[in-house]
Amino acid sequence: MKIAIDAMGGDHAPEEIVNGAMNALKVYEDIEITLVGDEQEINGLVGDHERLHVLHASEKITNEDEPVRAVRRKKQSSLVLAAEEVKQKRADACISTGNTGALMSAGLFVVGRIEGVERPALSPTLPTLDGKGFLMLDVGANVDAKAAHLLQYGIIGSIYAEKVRGIASPRVGLLNVGTEDGKGSELTKQSFDLLKEAPINFVGNVEARDLLDGIADVVVTDGFTGNVALKTIEGTASNMFKMIKETFMSNMKTKMAAALVKNDLKGLKDKLDYSEYGGAGLLGLSAPVIKAHGSSDRRAIVNAVRQARDMVEKEVSATIQTTLEQMEGEKE
Amino acid sequence: MKIAIDAMGGDHAPEEIVNGAMNALKVYEDIEITLVGDEQEINGLVGDHERLHVLHASEKITNEDEPVRAVRRKKQSSLVLAAEEVKQKRADACISTGNTGALMSAGLFVVGRIEGVERPALSPTLPTLDGKGFLMLDVGANVDAKAAHLLQYGIIGSIYAEKVRGIASPRVGLLNVGTEDGKGSELTKQSFDLLKEAPINFVGNVEARDLLDGIADVVVTDGFTGNVALKTIEGTASNMFKMIKETFMSNMKTKMAAALVKNDLKGLKDKLDYSEYGGAGLLGLSAPVIKAHGSSDRRAIVNAVRQARDMVEKEVSATIQTTLEQMEGEKE
Repeated sequence: MKIAIDAMGGDHAPEEIVNGAMNALKVYEDIEITLVGDEQEINGLVGDHERLHVLHASEKITNEDEPVRAVRRKKQSSLVLAAEEVKQKRADACISTGNTGALMSAGLFVVGRIEGVERPALSPTLPTLDGKGFLMLDVGANVDAKAAHLLQYGIIGSIYAEKVRGIASPRVGLLNVGTEDGKGSELTKQSFDLLKEAPINFVGNVEARDLLDGIADVVVTDGFTGNVALKTIEGTASNMFKMIKETFMSNMKTKMAAALVKNDLKGLKDKLDYSEYGGAGLLGLSAPVIKAHGSSDRRAIVNAVRQARDMVEKEVSATIQTTLEQMEGEKE
Repeated sequence: MKIAIDAMGGDHAPEEIVNGAMNALKVYEDIEITLVGDEQEINGLVGDHERLHVLHASEKITNEDEPVRAVRRKKQSSLVLAAEEVKQKRADACISTGNTGALMSAGLFVVGRIEGVERPALSPTLPTLDGKGFLMLDVGANVDAKAAHLLQYGIIGSIYAEKVRGIASPRVGLLNVGTEDGKGSELTKQSFDLLKEAPINFVGNVEARDLLDGIADVVVTDGFTGNVALKTIEGTASNMFKMIKETFMSNMKTKMAAALVKNDLKGLKDKLDYSEYGGAGLLGLSAPVIKAHGSSDRRAIVNAVRQARDMVEKEVSATIQTTLEQMEGEKE
């Protein structure tokens, strides 16, 4: 199995990405990795390894680039070339820590959708208090979603949770403004009716306040709402950590207390660190495309590689295609 | 000025509501309060007060009641009768801690909209790190909003922030999936163009992760997204407090630390307690209707009374009407 990694994206490129790739090769002996990026920079960081390849990219897509245009124009960028490796079947999956919009765009236009999938969904696994986490999709690939898209997210998410996260009969919930049947917007009402009939373990509407409690294994929502929910969790958590830190630094007494609980609070922070669960899969594409967080360190890269490897090994894309085909068949 | 309060809603009715009303009468000598609810229960809790009136209600709307139907059928409920006091001009404003949907429904069908307002918005003030807070609207009155509604929310919210919260030229932001112009869904793109031309201090798109940082004084969004954002903040904060508590209780060392920082952490919790800012106004109605949190204690009731009083005194509803009329006039 071969995985292509864009070595030039994110906050710690290329050092952490290269080191993460090296570590992943140690952990997973059945994979090969192609690092895509500035050859000279990468070679300066990496030793010889028979399962590591370097593919030179003369361009780089930055976070400031307009996604669709960047993918179209920067054909020699590390991000586009990594996607191209997948398209040309020289790699089974690709990973980038770079511009999310550009990766979605490269996923769509270079790698391509699974036949039958209308819109791929950006699908991170987010932390829960019990450490199990939940998959939320979509968090921004498709901000004007229709009910038919949300139906597919339910199916795609369920397959991913079962195959990759090892959850039997994953509970699929629809993010809504209330838990009762019949609640919500036109979009969620229509989606509810479709999800109810889908071949998944649909548990009905779930509310945003119960997300971190692990109310469902898969939470289905449109890309606009999902993006807002994701960023609200991030913002609330990081601001609370900031406030806790300020509280602990406020006087001698609190500083003493801080020294006593430092390690325990670190554990709390780790619990909410979703790089543990890998990156956000762009589910619905014909091969795994993983968006790892821009702040990914080498450990997060190893987790993203594990995730890509699991998706390839468990044939997630093929299972999605077969399931959607069966549903279409039954409809006719 | 007279304020009608539904004494029977929420988790601590009628005790905390009655006590809150009594305290409010002490603080604000220019108001009268009509408590609406079970006469016997209320009279058992309350002493004689020349500015306190009790209006008997033989029915009660519970949180389990279907909102629209409850308002239609339970004409003698404390919630409907409190709204009726406003309609009949026997009160200038009303407050309830009860069923949110029912209060919105009573607001719409009993109190009525300001002429020119298409949809009222449920508008809580949420906490920020600097303690100033921000108004978010809508958080659930109108889950299928159109751009014209979001334009009105911007204007209504700006007037409220200026008049009641005393913020000069309040910064109005549009909740979106990115900060750049042109980002987002069809709804936010259209709303952006309208808000840009409105007679407000529009600061453009804001992201959910910056909400608690005080990125704007007024955050405009559709009721579905706003509801999800609000509940995500609540859920993340309360789950984090739960985790912090567990961390502190985990061993002797952490328990010692807990004893040292207990009061400081209490301060942190208070900072995120938005009952400090009063309840959620149903802005756009012809008179102030305030939804106080279901868990409101007497202090929260006093804050809600202060808020209703400010809205009446500063003539928020009349200002909204005049501003919208002027805009219509300019269009023609």
